[in-house]
Amino acid sequence: MSFFAVIMAGGVGKRFWPQSRRSTPKQLLSIAGEESMLRVTVDRLKLFAPADHILIITNSDQEKGILSEIPELPSENIIIEPEGKNTAPAIGLAAIIIQHRDPEAVMGVFPADHFIQDLSSFAESIEQSIKVAADRQGLVTFGVTPSRPATGYGYIQYHDRPDAEEPVFAVKAFAEKPDLDTAKLFLKSGDFLWNSGMFVWEVDVILEAFKEFLPAIWDSLENIKRAIGLPVWNSVLTVEWATLRSISIDYGIMEKAKNVFVLKVEFDWNDVGSWDAVYEMSKKDPKGNVSRGDVIYHNCTNNLVLGDGRTIALMGVNNLVVVDTEDAILIMPREQTEMVKELVDYLKKQKRDSIT
Amino acid sequence: MSFFAVIMAGGVGKRFWPQSRRSTPKQLLSIAGEESMLRVTVDRLKLFAPADHILIITNSDQEKGILSEIPELPSENIIIEPEGKNTAPAIGLAAIIIQHRDPEAVMGVFPADHFIQDLSSFAESIEQSIKVAADRQGLVTFGVTPSRPATGYGYIQYHDRPDAEEPVFAVKAFAEKPDLDTAKLFLKSGDFLWNSGMFVWEVDVILEAFKEFLPAIWDSLENIKRAIGLPVWNSVLTVEWATLRSISIDYGIMEKAKNVFVLKVEFDWNDVGSWDAVYEMSKKDPKGNVSRGDVIYHNCTNNLVLGDGRTIALMGVNNLVVVDTEDAILIMPREQTEMVKELVDYLKKQKRDSIT
Repeated sequence: MSFFAVIMAGGVGKRFWPQSRRSTPKQLLSIAGEESMLRVTVDRLKLFAPADHILIITNSDQEKGILSEIPELPSENIIIEPEGKNTAPAIGLAAIIIQHRDPEAVMGVFPADHFIQDLSSFAESIEQSIKVAADRQGLVTFGVTPSRPATGYGYIQYHDRPDAEEPVFAVKAFAEKPDLDTAKLFLKSGDFLWNSGMFVWEVDVILEAFKEFLPAIWDSLENIKRAIGLPVWNSVLTVEWATLRSISIDYGIMEKAKNVFVLKVEFDWNDVGSWDAVYEMSKKDPKGNVSRGDVIYHNCTNNLVLGDGRTIALMGVNNLVVVDTEDAILIMPREQTEMVKELVDYLKKQKRDSIT
Repeated sequence: MSFFAVIMAGGVGKRFWPQSRRSTPKQLLSIAGEESMLRVTVDRLKLFAPADHILIITNSDQEKGILSEIPELPSENIIIEPEGKNTAPAIGLAAIIIQHRDPEAVMGVFPADHFIQDLSSFAESIEQSIKVAADRQGLVTFGVTPSRPATGYGYIQYHDRPDAEEPVFAVKAFAEKPDLDTAKLFLKSGDFLWNSGMFVWEVDVILEAFKEFLPAIWDSLENIKRAIGLPVWNSVLTVEWATLRSISIDYGIMEKAKNVFVLKVEFDWNDVGSWDAVYEMSKKDPKGNVSRGDVIYHNCTNNLVLGDGRTIALMGVNNLVVVDTEDAILIMPREQTEMVKELVDYLKKQKRDSIT
């Protein structure tokens, strides 16, 4: 058995505009520290897998940026989706490539843009999940104990066993991102976990699940698998990919399969889903401001201000997000930063290509 | 009798940071329209005086910018103060230079950075003031009927005569910038006008007032006058100037002289004293926003946003001032923009020379 880590790096992270752009997505930004989120994710996974066992699945817009950010990966480990089809096809594609290299491999799936600090607890969870995947032929998903009624995450309801010796549970239901009242109910009921989007399973077990629950995708994956290493690879992949439906792994498989387990993890976890999340996880000055660059405050509290060379002077403003870049600057209340995506969609509709 | 217009252009206008800088003061900015405030002021005065009868008094930091902005003035009409000594010495200096050219001249004093739109009413006031200055040997100051309890202006209390045939009144008292409660009282009492800082008088009448109320300055002015046109001009001016006390014309002369009249003017007047004043006098979009440059709003009302090339995107913010420049950006509530001066003083104290 060998372990392969697959990093899902196809998203743009529109909510991090104006720093995030088509070719500079969230995972290539240094949002949560000095290094890019992708760099940190790769380094975290190197604790379990050598570089040639780490795969990154992304799109052609980001290929160049990823190659220069993570030069140590073999180029064949950077998998380029012809177009985004949500998580299920991407995971299936990674699975057949790994299966081709080692039919007995266990694969883990990890988003490129999440924040985890407690590495020893993370390591423990990976080991537990590999054991469950192998011993029970299980599809293991990682669940995080919610600390607040977050509306930005999906939830997993599990069959609690108070006397459980290990934190592995059968899944009762998957729930989409809830509204605030529902999220409060989830938190109160005590048997809901945040769906972290991290998974561990044996490649043949997940491909078996594709065959059962997403047979059309499985057929395409079989065709693609036969082209691995051949000159026709690109054309086969492109042709097959165009036929695939866009569907998430949660909706397509996890909610339907019987052999799903949730591993209740103990490590800190943050999907860094908005500028406000960056504020929350950053070190604040005595007035609650988080700043990068040349920022001057006068009677200001609880702001997130990220400069980019220019001086940013603020007087008498509170709870604001200010993000400056060479060609665009964003100014908005912290609590509304989930909505940046709408702004970027608007800019795209206006064909403002140079700043999106 | 000839008419000379003197434009007071020595101020920096710190309250218009980050656009205003040492060498690019408020009057050289296009704050209230397409053209600089100085350009508009000169053009307004050209209705009464040919270019060689318009003088600009300023300092060496601004000389270059003024020469390039107003190329039509003879260079000897740009008077450089060795250092700022408030309004009285500057006006005295202009008076002796004009007296040297025409001992019977009437001079008008006009700030370089005020906003006046109604030119025919302005013209009428100038004519009235010249008549009062000549007929009554008066020191005429222009008073504006207050429309609100402004705390940013000085006030002039006058002896009202309800049956007055012309809007010329004796002055009861000058009042410094009041606090809000006092300003409300002024407004209620009905016999207070805003002190516009515009004056008209004969040169020999104002110099007589210097001799009586500011004799030390008058002595220096006499010495300086003897050096006009001579090679020693610069050294005499510099030496004499260093000895002068810094004092305003209001405090030094107007509050003490007996032959002071206030002309109650009818034209619109705004000293454009803050970014908020710019907002108030500008055309608003249907949501009350005033914008220049590439500005994108989403759920925003009543903001003033002045761009400088880059895109400025705002979401969910109201009543904010955002002023962008190449090297610095200001973000603050509109109602607090009087305080920008404090910020600039702070920057100067921090020796942030490149951005002040």
